Amino acid sequence: MIVPETTLALPVDVVPLGGLREFGMNTMAITCGDTTIVVDAGVMFAEPDLPGVDLVVPDLAYLEGLGHKVAAVFLTHGHEDHIGGLPYLMPLVEGPVYGSRLALALVENRLEQHSIDVRGRLKPVAPRERVQVGPFTIECLRVTHSMPDCLALAIHTPAGVLVHTGDFKIDHTPLDAETTDLPRLAELGQQGVLALFADSTNVDRPGVAGSERDVIDGFEEIFTSTAGKIVVAMFASSIHRMQILVDLAAQFDRNVAFVGRGVIDNSETAQRLGLLRIPSGVQIRDSEVRNFPGSDVVCITTGSQGEPAAALSRIAIDDHRFVKVDDDDVVVFSARAIPGNERAIGRVMNHLALRGADVIYEGQKHIHVSGHGHVEELKLMHSLVRPKYFVPIHGEYRQLARHARVAQTVSRGTEILVIDNGDVLRFDGEGAAIEGRAEVGRRLIDGTRTGEVADEVLRDRKHLAGDGLIVPMLAVNMQTGELAGTFEIITRGFVVDEASEALLRDATAMIRDAVRAAPIEERTDVGLLRERVRSELQRVLRRKAGRRPLIVPVVMEI
Amino acid sequence: MIVPETTLALPVDVVPLGGLREFGMNTMAITCGDTTIVVDAGVMFAEPDLPGVDLVVPDLAYLEGLGHKVAAVFLTHGHEDHIGGLPYLMPLVEGPVYGSRLALALVENRLEQHSIDVRGRLKPVAPRERVQVGPFTIECLRVTHSMPDCLALAIHTPAGVLVHTGDFKIDHTPLDAETTDLPRLAELGQQGVLALFADSTNVDRPGVAGSERDVIDGFEEIFTSTAGKIVVAMFASSIHRMQILVDLAAQFDRNVAFVGRGVIDNSETAQRLGLLRIPSGVQIRDSEVRNFPGSDVVCITTGSQGEPAAALSRIAIDDHRFVKVDDDDVVVFSARAIPGNERAIGRVMNHLALRGADVIYEGQKHIHVSGHGHVEELKLMHSLVRPKYFVPIHGEYRQLARHARVAQTVSRGTEILVIDNGDVLRFDGEGAAIEGRAEVGRRLIDGTRTGEVADEVLRDRKHLAGDGLIVPMLAVNMQTGELAGTFEIITRGFVVDEASEALLRDATAMIRDAVRAAPIEERTDVGLLRERVRSELQRVLRRKAGRRPLIVPVVMEI
Repeated sequence: MIVPETTLALPVDVVPLGGLREFGMNTMAITCGDTTIVVDAGVMFAEPDLPGVDLVVPDLAYLEGLGHKVAAVFLTHGHEDHIGGLPYLMPLVEGPVYGSRLALALVENRLEQHSIDVRGRLKPVAPRERVQVGPFTIECLRVTHSMPDCLALAIHTPAGVLVHTGDFKIDHTPLDAETTDLPRLAELGQQGVLALFADSTNVDRPGVAGSERDVIDGFEEIFTSTAGKIVVAMFASSIHRMQILVDLAAQFDRNVAFVGRGVIDNSETAQRLGLLRIPSGVQIRDSEVRNFPGSDVVCITTGSQGEPAAALSRIAIDDHRFVKVDDDDVVVFSARAIPGNERAIGRVMNHLALRGADVIYEGQKHIHVSGHGHVEELKLMHSLVRPKYFVPIHGEYRQLARHARVAQTVSRGTEILVIDNGDVLRFDGEGAAIEGRAEVGRRLIDGTRTGEVADEVLRDRKHLAGDGLIVPMLAVNMQTGELAGTFEIITRGFVVDEASEALLRDATAMIRDAVRAAPIEERTDVGLLRERVRSELQRVLRRKAGRRPLIVPVVMEI
Repeated sequence: MIVPETTLALPVDVVPLGGLREFGMNTMAITCGDTTIVVDAGVMFAEPDLPGVDLVVPDLAYLEGLGHKVAAVFLTHGHEDHIGGLPYLMPLVEGPVYGSRLALALVENRLEQHSIDVRGRLKPVAPRERVQVGPFTIECLRVTHSMPDCLALAIHTPAGVLVHTGDFKIDHTPLDAETTDLPRLAELGQQGVLALFADSTNVDRPGVAGSERDVIDGFEEIFTSTAGKIVVAMFASSIHRMQILVDLAAQFDRNVAFVGRGVIDNSETAQRLGLLRIPSGVQIRDSEVRNFPGSDVVCITTGSQGEPAAALSRIAIDDHRFVKVDDDDVVVFSARAIPGNERAIGRVMNHLALRGADVIYEGQKHIHVSGHGHVEELKLMHSLVRPKYFVPIHGEYRQLARHARVAQTVSRGTEILVIDNGDVLRFDGEGAAIEGRAEVGRRLIDGTRTGEVADEVLRDRKHLAGDGLIVPMLAVNMQTGELAGTFEIITRGFVVDEASEALLRDATAMIRDAVRAAPIEERTDVGLLRERVRSELQRVLRRKAGRRPLIVPVVMEI
């Protein structure tokens, strides 16, 4: 690698803007001289603790203050926590966005929805390909994960080589035969790696995550023993999982329907790129499911996290346009429960069981494997890369701290730096040190729950007083689902003039009607009911008044 | 068994009042003629979906409408979801409360706090003991569970024998050598059991739960490898777990301190009854922990569910009077996460990791076993008892439905009745059928979070308008923990006269001061901050005005 002489003496600053001491919004800036590249641009899904907020992205003040634009963005793979923040980053970028074909296909639509012109700026890269950006040479390396086409990065800088693992596990038998590039990682390790930045997500789990193929036996049992429909809920990006179900469906003479926006879009994209292969005659449309006997159908669907608006939640309360579940059917939750979603998932499972379906989830049968390496895989990475410095990334503080302990057991020679978002980690000829703090934080975004991504707006919470707070209060009889007493709306900081007063009065009636029209299972489920009230009110206020107040429904049982 | 002839023709009605299609508030009424007995009187801890509510107990309208008082209560064991509702049931009871010595010791204090005179009415029963109540003969049978001294019941009625398992697993090597009475269950099965009512909690889990002893190896590893303090959080009723830790502490020359009200009270009770044996010189007081080097100490504490007020949460943010954790210390979460608590638990873990402690939980090491039998243990129960009818209890709908499927695989001859709270299940000479519905529901209770159990009041939510709603709104900088902008309080249905207005004004200032005085980790943790504001405001309003409005804090990040 030839490095221009003038930059040889320049230090390299690495600044994580998100993804440390938290899960999600993985974003890291790397600067040398007046060249900055950014690795990943992720979102985080909001905690229930933050009512009215749907998405969280990193505050990019640090990048704004650099005095130059970002020269290039590198996406390790196509998950939302690595690409979902790109629309908010793009205004600060003047160069290309590099990523695998799948990752770029997934971001393309999203950027267009934000009216960001990306023609010619999305540059697909292949494993072992190298890209030169100013003083950096970025080398892309194949890693395995829960979706196809994922990359780690070896970033050759004037200060040395930085290895960023992205999300990875070490699947020796991936469905697409594209294994983690252990040989090149080993070679880099032999040649000398300055610093390793590695995924800490599953550091708490013993052993290894296992291959994506490991779920085949569990699903085979289900295909063998199920008389009716098989409905499988998964993350919309689980292309490998889709392939396994398509192959089993073909083998067992069932048809496959994708049900729910996320899996429909992603399966189309993956098919177009040759990453999902569906034998002809196997796929049917969601609207055709009812034309086939249950024994002939597999539905691949969204809603594994109990999201009220997802297809599976609608199916569970018998409120889906095309798909019903009955006595002989089996519903499989082929995903882990993200912490905080357990109760919502449990409610969906109860509704499905009430319809007569047999509900199967992780723990009962082996129908999910994680995409993040467990502790033995992390040790293998450390053992091969043997970096001078190690910085744990992707995890809450306890995962980062444990990853530091694990790294120490593998090599006592590595210096470990448990840093935080905003720490300016400087590498120069002398070594590595934290050289100050960048301004970091979170920006809260609402609006995606309704699916109106194009309407999405950044909302600075300092201006909340302008939009105001609305607390709709309902009293509901949880046995019958009847609204009891009056339906009240409390407002604060929401400018109430004559027009908006009338609007609120109308909204009250509309929500009352909407609740009454909802299925009893929705009306007697506090979580679903709150979401129904919230989204109805949000929709009305947005359409009729262009207002986006914070809406915090309070449901009282009587 | 001799049954008075006059009752021979009378049918037996079994009415579950709680614990079906839900976890918690297990309560079941059994009536023959004018004799009613109640098995268990449990509470449920409220979902986060119900702000301002701490406890939920069953509506007892059915019992009120019987025309006679309850002749006796039988408690299967001392867990809150089986005994916590007793204070609300007692006004309807004219006879004794039967239970094991431990269960009765645990209820005794609680009843006294409610000013319910229990002198002479709490009757300890031993395994294989029989109690006659009108036409019923109730036979107590030992079962193993996560605490000592648990019972199943064989209720001999004019219609036949009903077996109620209580909570159970089949631990072949319990610490106290008191094994589940499989011989008597088998004998009853041979003689003919009319109906089995069995715990469904863990029907989803394969294999067997395992013995309480199974955690010893995991803890031994921790005792061997830990240089500093060992802090173990557990449910306050986990007396077996306490015994294991006491024994290991003695073996490894450490002292044991109980830290937190729940474990202090329960360990005292268990010692008094001879169910927890602590060698002399091993136990120290919580206030003495700081006088010993960490290497000499084990703390047994509360807070395994991330409860903000529990000892472990205070320790985690370095706000505990007696106990600090440091670099060499290990904190073990020796309990499962109850669904819905995962995020709160994760926050406490992060705070502990930030203090330098190594945090260990289920999944990393085998340091917890469940007290509820897994599917193979449930099959054993069915296989021994071979009932004519089977009614799954203790579980949400999906667990009851799965338990029905499991029972079917064991015996195709058993008739399975998946019923609901309020179903009047009648057994007569002819068979069993649902003969109508009893009025059931939930009563919501607030107040226990502050520990002021004596102050606890039943609050009928229909009267909520009288107490009103208070929404304190804070804006906080989540980086610095500084309060930003104004601290506002919105009220509704809270009668605001001059006095209460002044009170609210004072309260606002007091809360602002309390927040400012809190450690930064508490101020930058949305969950802890909301709980701090809620409990402060509740305390002030209760003391100064005797008011108990619903308090729903809204915290906005800026």
